[in-house]
Amino acid sequence: MNRQTALIIIDMQNDFVLAGAPMEVAGARAIVPNLKKVLNYFRRASWPVFHVIREYRADGSDIEKPRRDRFLTDQSYCVPGTKGWEIIEELNPVAGEYRLVKNHFSGFMNTELDFMLRRLEVSNIVVCGVQYPNCIRATIYDGVSLGYDVTLVTDAAGAETEAVAKANIYDISNIGVECITTEQFLLARP
Amino acid sequence: MNRQTALIIIDMQNDFVLAGAPMEVAGARAIVPNLKKVLNYFRRASWPVFHVIREYRADGSDIEKPRRDRFLTDQSYCVPGTKGWEIIEELNPVAGEYRLVKNHFSGFMNTELDFMLRRLEVSNIVVCGVQYPNCIRATIYDGVSLGYDVTLVTDAAGAETEAVAKANIYDISNIGVECITTEQFLLARP
Repeated sequence: MNRQTALIIIDMQNDFVLAGAPMEVAGARAIVPNLKKVLNYFRRASWPVFHVIREYRADGSDIEKPRRDRFLTDQSYCVPGTKGWEIIEELNPVAGEYRLVKNHFSGFMNTELDFMLRRLEVSNIVVCGVQYPNCIRATIYDGVSLGYDVTLVTDAAGAETEAVAKANIYDISNIGVECITTEQFLLARP
Repeated sequence: MNRQTALIIIDMQNDFVLAGAPMEVAGARAIVPNLKKVLNYFRRASWPVFHVIREYRADGSDIEKPRRDRFLTDQSYCVPGTKGWEIIEELNPVAGEYRLVKNHFSGFMNTELDFMLRRLEVSNIVVCGVQYPNCIRATIYDGVSLGYDVTLVTDAAGAETEAVAKANIYDISNIGVECITTEQFLLARP
């Protein structure tokens, strides 16, 4: 672990986190205190922080096909400018942190994330946020594929259920990703 | 379902399938009869078939970092020209089928797969092979992200254990992927 470490916080937006939100992830709110501890560590260390968020056009033209009908007829989400699209108050980006939009599951797909990490000479990415089976996992697999050392802070990432989280951590651990708790992360990096 | 449907068979190479192979997936051999039925359906229908395989350079320069040490010091695999790199005999490609090399988990990452599917005007991809948590899943998530209708033939795809397969099918089903058995696939497409 050296200075070339970046924090990637995924989809911690009101529409995924708040109680009763249209895409509420049941396990999202419980991870906020841990995520805040990890974020504060990066802030104190002045290491790069990326707030990766989801955006969809209101007309449904860029949403995944299986989600489109519900998005158009029931309730939309992550539409730029809405309250639900915003990052939750507790994790509001501060000056010097990067806000980066993704339109797909992986934070790397069709985004400037890899380019920016290379420019910052980052070799290790630390991944947190929601949710395990989709954006967390797709970003981690692409991160490994692109040659990054990847760390998952297991209790700073959330899923719909504990069983889903556990099954995903099992698979992710099996491809050689460092899977540690917030406490372990902070102890290893005093 | 129309003519624009393609079969994507992933990593059914000796090094992943044969008993005692260096990267043997425990559930791989059991799926071969089902996979063969699905493949025969595509052959009879003259629909496009892609055999997507894994390749690594023998010096370890393009393998995922967490796998590199074992690959170099213990046993290499999927090195072009070796017996282990070859597609298993039962699924040997025939004339007109595409062999496509991937160097990462997803069949779409840095490959010509998306380009070729578009040229063939494919809208629906049917995914089979090994193994669930890694290449099967990464390919499916990218397929959904890129706008394809995705079908997973659940008993023509394999994992190390039934529990891993089941947990992955649960997550994959939750993003709107059609998850059906070989029997259901064949019944729906007489």
